[in-house]
Amino acid sequence: MTRIAFLGPRGTFAEAALRTLAAAEHADLLPAGSVFDALDAVRDGSADLALVPIENSVEGAVTLTIDELTNGSPLVIVDEAVLAVQFSLVAPPGVALSDVAHIATHPHAQAQVLGWLRDNLPDAVVLPALSTAAAAAALTETPRPFDAAVAQSITAEIYGLTILADAIGDTSDATTRFVLVSKPGAMPAPTGADKTTLSLFMRTDQPGALLAILTEFAVRGVNLTRIESRPTRKAMGDYFFSVDIEGHLADARVAEALMGLHRICLDVRYLGSYPRHDGKPPVLRPGVTDTDFSEARQWLGHLKGN
Amino acid sequence: MTRIAFLGPRGTFAEAALRTLAAAEHADLLPAGSVFDALDAVRDGSADLALVPIENSVEGAVTLTIDELTNGSPLVIVDEAVLAVQFSLVAPPGVALSDVAHIATHPHAQAQVLGWLRDNLPDAVVLPALSTAAAAAALTETPRPFDAAVAQSITAEIYGLTILADAIGDTSDATTRFVLVSKPGAMPAPTGADKTTLSLFMRTDQPGALLAILTEFAVRGVNLTRIESRPTRKAMGDYFFSVDIEGHLADARVAEALMGLHRICLDVRYLGSYPRHDGKPPVLRPGVTDTDFSEARQWLGHLKGN
Amino acid sequence: MTRIAFLGPRGTFAEAALRTLAAAEHADLLPAGSVFDALDAVRDGSADLALVPIENSVEGAVTLTIDELTNGSPLVIVDEAVLAVQFSLVAPPGVALSDVAHIATHPHAQAQVLGWLRDNLPDAVVLPALSTAAAAAALTETPRPFDAAVAQSITAEIYGLTILADAIGDTSDATTRFVLVSKPGAMPAPTGADKTTLSLFMRTDQPGALLAILTEFAVRGVNLTRIESRPTRKAMGDYFFSVDIEGHLADARVAEALMGLHRICLDVRYLGSYPRHDGKPPVLRPGVTDTDFSEARQWLGHLKGN
Amino acid sequence: MTRIAFLGPRGTFAEAALRTLAAAEHADLLPAGSVFDALDAVRDGSADLALVPIENSVEGAVTLTIDELTNGSPLVIVDEAVLAVQFSLVAPPGVALSDVAHIATHPHAQAQVLGWLRDNLPDAVVLPALSTAAAAAALTETPRPFDAAVAQSITAEIYGLTILADAIGDTSDATTRFVLVSKPGAMPAPTGADKTTLSLFMRTDQPGALLAILTEFAVRGVNLTRIESRPTRKAMGDYFFSVDIEGHLADARVAEALMGLHRICLDVRYLGSYPRHDGKPPVLRPGVTDTDFSEARQWLGHLKGN
Repeated sequence: MTRIAFLGPRGTFAEAALRTLAAAEHADLLPAGSVFDALDAVRDGSADLALVPIENSVEGAVTLTIDELTNGSPLVIVDEAVLAVQFSLVAPPGVALSDVAHIATHPHAQAQVLGWLRDNLPDAVVLPALSTAAAAAALTETPRPFDAAVAQSITAEIYGLTILADAIGDTSDATTRFVLVSKPGAMPAPTGADKTTLSLFMRTDQPGALLAILTEFAVRGVNLTRIESRPTRKAMGDYFFSVDIEGHLADARVAEALMGLHRICLDVRYLGSYPRHDGKPPVLRPGVTDTDFSEARQWLGHLKGN
Repeated sequence: MTRIAFLGPRGTFAEAALRTLAAAEHADLLPAGSVFDALDAVRDGSADLALVPIENSVEGAVTLTIDELTNGSPLVIVDEAVLAVQFSLVAPPGVALSDVAHIATHPHAQAQVLGWLRDNLPDAVVLPALSTAAAAAALTETPRPFDAAVAQSITAEIYGLTILADAIGDTSDATTRFVLVSKPGAMPAPTGADKTTLSLFMRTDQPGALLAILTEFAVRGVNLTRIESRPTRKAMGDYFFSVDIEGHLADARVAEALMGLHRICLDVRYLGSYPRHDGKPPVLRPGVTDTDFSEARQWLGHLKGN
Repeated sequence: MTRIAFLGPRGTFAEAALRTLAAAEHADLLPAGSVFDALDAVRDGSADLALVPIENSVEGAVTLTIDELTNGSPLVIVDEAVLAVQFSLVAPPGVALSDVAHIATHPHAQAQVLGWLRDNLPDAVVLPALSTAAAAAALTETPRPFDAAVAQSITAEIYGLTILADAIGDTSDATTRFVLVSKPGAMPAPTGADKTTLSLFMRTDQPGALLAILTEFAVRGVNLTRIESRPTRKAMGDYFFSVDIEGHLADARVAEALMGLHRICLDVRYLGSYPRHDGKPPVLRPGVTDTDFSEARQWLGHLKGN
Repeated sequence: MTRIAFLGPRGTFAEAALRTLAAAEHADLLPAGSVFDALDAVRDGSADLALVPIENSVEGAVTLTIDELTNGSPLVIVDEAVLAVQFSLVAPPGVALSDVAHIATHPHAQAQVLGWLRDNLPDAVVLPALSTAAAAAALTETPRPFDAAVAQSITAEIYGLTILADAIGDTSDATTRFVLVSKPGAMPAPTGADKTTLSLFMRTDQPGALLAILTEFAVRGVNLTRIESRPTRKAMGDYFFSVDIEGHLADARVAEALMGLHRICLDVRYLGSYPRHDGKPPVLRPGVTDTDFSEARQWLGHLKGN
């Protein structure tokens, strides 16, 4: 049976995201204490796959995940899942909304429900917790350390809590993107609607480095969907770029762009090609399909007299 | 007396960074519970200035700070400080290194001392805390909730702890960059070695948007020192770009680049021009000094017959 | 009365083009022996204006004109005319098509009627002449030096010739573009559909020079309608670029692009802004109108606290 | 024996240039009446090769040659020659400098000796001739139609003339570049110092077309040595670009750039790869040698699991 590590404990968004993937259906799901632990489980063979968050529509890139994938022994992304992130106010049975004086949650979650709290519980004290699931779990203790938690509604079911208010996030369509990671091996077949993730290290911190990188993509009609400059962990101002692009390593335009990057970069870390969660194919400008590349190669062969 | 809010509690790196700035010398230093609270103190007038972290050589951009500056009522950066981030293992008096079985610290700090822990305390259990200073402060409780904390050495002095090991970070030159923020008003005078921080919102999520932005800078010889794509808090894939550039709003090349960006962007949020902490002037290519801009304007006037 | 020099003799396309311009209506028209002579007449004051060819839809740029405008004392273009270039076979009265054994014309004109000659007079010998009008004029001599000339139909009227065949050019819509030139002074007012002509000298023969020039235009949304690399008359491989752009010096986007070019070029020779002959306004991308530039400047002033 | 057509008559610069090439040593040299005729001789098989002028350091591109190579049945350049263009004043025996009242020459040559004429023969009348060699040849007629000709010094020897003054050009280092043309077939082997000539037709007259073309070259580190926009003989404003680039079709960077152009252009006309006359190898930026391309391809194969 496939063993999949995920960022636990039970009731986290990671688990909810994992359950949307076909790979999870008959798999053994292993909660891990951190992104480190989840990825290490794949690296040391104690898990076959790991699901970790990589991007959040409110908080942005999960830099820890990006850095961990970029450093250490090679891992590649083989699938992605995007989950709507919705918050509820959960409490132990018997606690009513009017009883809530102390609330615990993760500061990121707090940031997303500020409006609701201001309108509905203006006098409540909010205590920081290490995760929303941890805050919910703590409500099972006796005596309860606080009155309620801002967490996923699924935690109510897991920990036997009541939902006092549902969908309390200020932004109704917040989402988190997770990636399923494995050791390098069989690559997912191209579907026509794929993404590829890369970490690009520049030779020096030259002013035009990013412009050069973007031009390698633009010339081959490859669109970017995410970019982050990330420190290389050496000195402030020494960066690499973490990017997601549209397309698969098997696409000619992606392959040529990657070879171009390999020539101008100090290092290109390939982090996998995988199907887009939304199945949305790229809008390509003329001249960059596999057919266009193949015809150009034939024409060149003809010029060379081959 | 100037009142300066900072990310507390006492003993955080933010306080240490603040003490390196001239502005802090005779100021009233006000610890704040979060980046939110520190910035809100300036917005609501309960503080004149706030010092908050914006970038870390290990962890990258502090997205919370960037987002808070970008949204809400206008604030501008007026100075910056860069602090070497060094970790120590601190414990209550009487605890020896061989006694340490449980350690608390913030996960980010843990990430930076993994090597030292593996070599010196391979069997210790590491517990997550909300901040390194909070972990150190908790060691004053009785009974002590754990044996030691990974924190700044200054916390030993503040909380009456012993330093069991100093400089235990895996990367010896890790640094954090902090920015001093005020309400818009008098701008720091240009020094010849300045930075400007901007948040750039694109009209649509078009493929070439970032290339267009970078070209506006490149054409005027303006170098970038940091760039992040950040979600606009609306939907996944709807980004703004947070950038630091070399130069001051008073520099002609910066002013023209900003006007160019204003014309192509949906919105440009100006977050201040301020002296670089290292006093390092930009290396400019020919043709982009104030004199070059001024001569070009005179020449144009001559062509127009003025 | 305004005196206008043009590339003579009478009956040239230059004269026909000149007659389409309002400036020629009550003017004294002075045929000149060459482009040099026409331009020199303006430079030495013996004419107020000169009309010279600058571009031909079949033969391309008239490099002599471009070089003469670029070098020597300053001249500027104040208007343009585009003339359909159509060829006829003209002959002295009494000569029939079947009598034609020898034809004279300018080699460029010959190149444009090759198809007609092959189909209609396959055995005729074609003699080179210095201009089509000179060939027609020579037909008034006795005995006639050849039987017919390929020239403009207007030469029939001027020199008392018969038109044996009309519209014999292989390309039915060949055109020549002429420019009206004066000493620098009052500039034609912008009409909203203007062109500007420039000669751009690079600092060195660096590989990226042309890319840099084109980027200065592209960033301000200025379109090019013609570009030629031209030797600087110093050494092979030492070039300047002759370009026509859409827009008037009074347009903000053109003015800013020119200042940008002034900063990166060794020299920018401004050769005038003038109304397009076809009155076709440019298709502008968003963000580059005068209003956009003016709003950006106001916004900048606001940031600076002005 | 190899038959080589050249732009005659005897004594032209074309013949002098041809004699500098190894191919001419034991060849049958065939003077042709025009560039058309020389190229047609190769096309119809009456010559194996043709030498025609393509660029002049004073007058720029020889557009007739470029257009003739671009249109019609395929021809390719296999070699080039560059000749210093120097002018003399030649006259029949017995004519002294003080006797010279009428001079004939080609207008282009006249343009290059204006300074000398002004200083030495300010009152001489200059008559236009179809070529400098034709002017010299006419001096053998009796009675002589004019007193002297501005032509190559070699014409003195050919036509039995006297050199009245040597090296009278205003620019001492004027040169003309000639190309040796054949039917497509065996391509000259790469020498490490080669050029490739192309005609590039755009899909539409879009503003960014030239920028796109230059970017295809720049991304692969291919330098341009000449560029001309040329009308397509259809309508004013409908252009193709004639370019010379550094490198050989057998160079990986050139091959990839050509395939890129093939994808974005309406048509790419390949006009040959051939050794540079000066043997000067290109200065390449890092990452664009054949080794770099080959290593990038190997790396890609490794990623794909091949």
